[in-house]
Amino acid sequence: MAEKKPNKLKARLPRGLADRGPAEIAATRAMVETIRAQFEKYGFEPVETPAIEYTDALGKFLPDQDRPNEGVFSFQDDDEQWLSLRYDLTAPLARYVAENYQHLALPYRSYRFGYVYRNEKPGPGRFRQFMQFDADTVGAPTMAADAEMCMLAADTMEALGIPRGQYVVKVNNRKVLDGVMDAADIAANKRLTVLRAIDKLDRLGVEGVRQLLGTGRKDESGDFTKGAELTPDVADFIITNSGGDEGFAGKRKDGGVEIFPQTAGKAALTSDVLEAGKKELAEIEKLCREAGYGPDRIRKDNSVVRGLEYYTGPVYEVELLIETKDEKGRPVRFGSVGGGGRYDGLVSRFRGEPVPATGFSIGVSRLQAALTLIGKLDAKPPAGPVLVTVFGPDSVPQAQKLTATLRGAGIRAEMYLGNPKRGVGDQLKYADKRHAPCAVIQGPDEKVKGEVQIRDLIAGAAPSGAAEREEHLKKQAAAQTAVKETELVAAVRAVLQEHGLA
Amino acid sequence: MAEKKPNKLKARLPRGLADRGPAEIAATRAMVETIRAQFEKYGFEPVETPAIEYTDALGKFLPDQDRPNEGVFSFQDDDEQWLSLRYDLTAPLARYVAENYQHLALPYRSYRFGYVYRNEKPGPGRFRQFMQFDADTVGAPTMAADAEMCMLAADTMEALGIPRGQYVVKVNNRKVLDGVMDAADIAANKRLTVLRAIDKLDRLGVEGVRQLLGTGRKDESGDFTKGAELTPDVADFIITNSGGDEGFAGKRKDGGVEIFPQTAGKAALTSDVLEAGKKELAEIEKLCREAGYGPDRIRKDNSVVRGLEYYTGPVYEVELLIETKDEKGRPVRFGSVGGGGRYDGLVSRFRGEPVPATGFSIGVSRLQAALTLIGKLDAKPPAGPVLVTVFGPDSVPQAQKLTATLRGAGIRAEMYLGNPKRGVGDQLKYADKRHAPCAVIQGPDEKVKGEVQIRDLIAGAAPSGAAEREEHLKKQAAAQTAVKETELVAAVRAVLQEHGLA
Repeated sequence: MAEKKPNKLKARLPRGLADRGPAEIAATRAMVETIRAQFEKYGFEPVETPAIEYTDALGKFLPDQDRPNEGVFSFQDDDEQWLSLRYDLTAPLARYVAENYQHLALPYRSYRFGYVYRNEKPGPGRFRQFMQFDADTVGAPTMAADAEMCMLAADTMEALGIPRGQYVVKVNNRKVLDGVMDAADIAANKRLTVLRAIDKLDRLGVEGVRQLLGTGRKDESGDFTKGAELTPDVADFIITNSGGDEGFAGKRKDGGVEIFPQTAGKAALTSDVLEAGKKELAEIEKLCREAGYGPDRIRKDNSVVRGLEYYTGPVYEVELLIETKDEKGRPVRFGSVGGGGRYDGLVSRFRGEPVPATGFSIGVSRLQAALTLIGKLDAKPPAGPVLVTVFGPDSVPQAQKLTATLRGAGIRAEMYLGNPKRGVGDQLKYADKRHAPCAVIQGPDEKVKGEVQIRDLIAGAAPSGAAEREEHLKKQAAAQTAVKETELVAAVRAVLQEHGLA
Repeated sequence: MAEKKPNKLKARLPRGLADRGPAEIAATRAMVETIRAQFEKYGFEPVETPAIEYTDALGKFLPDQDRPNEGVFSFQDDDEQWLSLRYDLTAPLARYVAENYQHLALPYRSYRFGYVYRNEKPGPGRFRQFMQFDADTVGAPTMAADAEMCMLAADTMEALGIPRGQYVVKVNNRKVLDGVMDAADIAANKRLTVLRAIDKLDRLGVEGVRQLLGTGRKDESGDFTKGAELTPDVADFIITNSGGDEGFAGKRKDGGVEIFPQTAGKAALTSDVLEAGKKELAEIEKLCREAGYGPDRIRKDNSVVRGLEYYTGPVYEVELLIETKDEKGRPVRFGSVGGGGRYDGLVSRFRGEPVPATGFSIGVSRLQAALTLIGKLDAKPPAGPVLVTVFGPDSVPQAQKLTATLRGAGIRAEMYLGNPKRGVGDQLKYADKRHAPCAVIQGPDEKVKGEVQIRDLIAGAAPSGAAEREEHLKKQAAAQTAVKETELVAAVRAVLQEHGLA
């Protein structure tokens, strides 16, 4: 590092952001097309909103402090108004629907995908920019809309190649949790903290949740998360009752089927809002069963909470049940790769009239990481372009012409654009790095004869073991053929066809 | 407006940002796929960088003022470092290449597309978020790389359906302009202002450029743009000479072929840098001609400048020559829809060694607006999903099942998700708004018989004139047929096939 100039700029990305190469991009494209086809089959139509919105429209303004929530990236416009990068695709949709309400066919069913931004602490698999793919139905008051979202989630997982039994859509209802919090008399400003604590049961276990409901919790890295400051007996009441009928404490069964066994300490608890939540859950269950979606695909699960504050009724989550191992052989469970719920209040904020809505969001980036790890996505880069070599600066116009001829015939091709004085050996090394299937070589001798050499770089690739050396020499001799310049396209196409590339 | 509650949030987008509907999204997808295919044929491979970068990596930090340039959206990270939204796709690529230099096959040929953000005054057709599609070759020192960019630009325009003769790729060289500014002894900190002034010749004419070279210019809206503060005789020298051989003043010929007629007041001007620029231009011209690209597609044009400061050699611009009229019948010229150039210094900033590079960028959003206006892009929304109607809440599970059956057969379908107590008439109005090709109706009578009604909404659409009334009544009777529930899929598919939708 000693030779570095002190003034040289450092090339680096801010934390929690990542570049993506050809294989990753191709995999995302394939996923997005599959999801799009599925969402369209369900009758959703596309809409797109920009990445920047007014902070107040996103509901991320802290009115008492006159500045935006720290979890979103924010900046002031030249008229001093606060702008933020969208942190999800739901809040912008609510703004869009409110702004275009008169022109939309209601219920309005739309889908959209794109990057969202969170100004949060990045970690393994946690990024500050990631892709979501959402479907929403606005103006649909009944549980049929929520049931449909669950079916859509299940069908989309299977369309993406995840076999039945290796995923599950889990459904709960915020009203059940609201009923418990009502009974425990939890103050409004503590409720989101309580919900987020319960949401972490999967990751932290009952003891971790108890800490987050109480004074707070320090994680392995030493970072401290503030708790909801409930007294121990209130925290206990929440833990015992938040599972609705079955309670929340007790052992979880792996695979998640029987999560809430009866517990002795359960309080007798009932309320109108809790009963309404239970009724809605039963309705969704009935609709799914009648449409042919069994409990192996969609089922009630009282541990589902979702961390966002705007949900008002059913909440649902897609969980991958596949277990795999990471590079170090440690078991990996993917957990939630998508979710959503009903948000009847989000559009109303703009319109002053009730506008029921429900939506589902797939975490494309997270799901892609999971599918790659289990080998469901091809991570191999595709074959490179045909390389046309050059013999010094004077040969360039002719080489450019050969390249243009190949491209004109629809063949992926490039001329060597490094220093044209480099030898053919160097150029072929470059071709190799680029995964070029073949090279076109025209030295002065060939030029005079009106010929080109076509070198098959796949057949002629160097063998990995010395044992195959003789075989390789034979192959190499066969792998280069001279043809008339007029037969360039046909000869290159023949090589591509031989390797299944054309 | 009197009934509005004072506290109600306003649903609105910040200036210069826009939402996009189904037709626009479909058109962008088609364009992006066409451009991608073309860029891949040229041997470029995809790469993607995030929307957020360190401000200094983008070169948008004002070191003397310790804050970012006002033209980019910027915010501070929690460690106080400045971050910015990318304002183009070139600066992030330079950072990417510098960061991954050891692992890339050089010359590195890549393409990428995505939104970029500019914190500038929005206007008609000028947005603060818009899409670009770029190709770049890094590590390529010769004019062959620049010539290839021009050919790529020309081929891409034709692939997008713009006929030969209706676009042109215009090429100039910054060294020519640098030679003139050297001769006029223009200070380094004024050069970008001078270049941007010359760049506006197209829009403002010679007098406008003269004002921008001098004290400044007030536009129609009253906004004032500060000038380069050159004395009148220096401004005159620039105007007379910046066209290289032919000078810049004098009448422009429409279509842009002969832009720089000889002028009497021209100074005798020559310098090494100017001569180098002219030699490079001649090389590009030769390579293009030998590869079969004539002056109707790619040609020298001394008025091309490009407004970005990082260009060091050839600069090129794609201009649409199509003239059309706007909604008010006024003639519209689209002008530049893409451009680029050589930026040999951009990667070097990070590496302390020369890294030659050249790139080309298509303004997708602007090109899309142009293609839509001349009718080259389909702006019609596609057909909607089949609507399954409901008869009150109790019918919903059965209707959901019919919908699932259609979807299972690959047919785009939705169940009515508004209030299930609404009459069928209201539901059919909704189907109409959604452009549904047909509706599936199963009332209590049909249910008992195990039947469904299939109503063809295209054949049965209400006539616009009263004269076709009788015809319409006949059609309507024929447009609804009862079939057994087991034949639902076949019957719906028949209707779709009849209208060319399956």
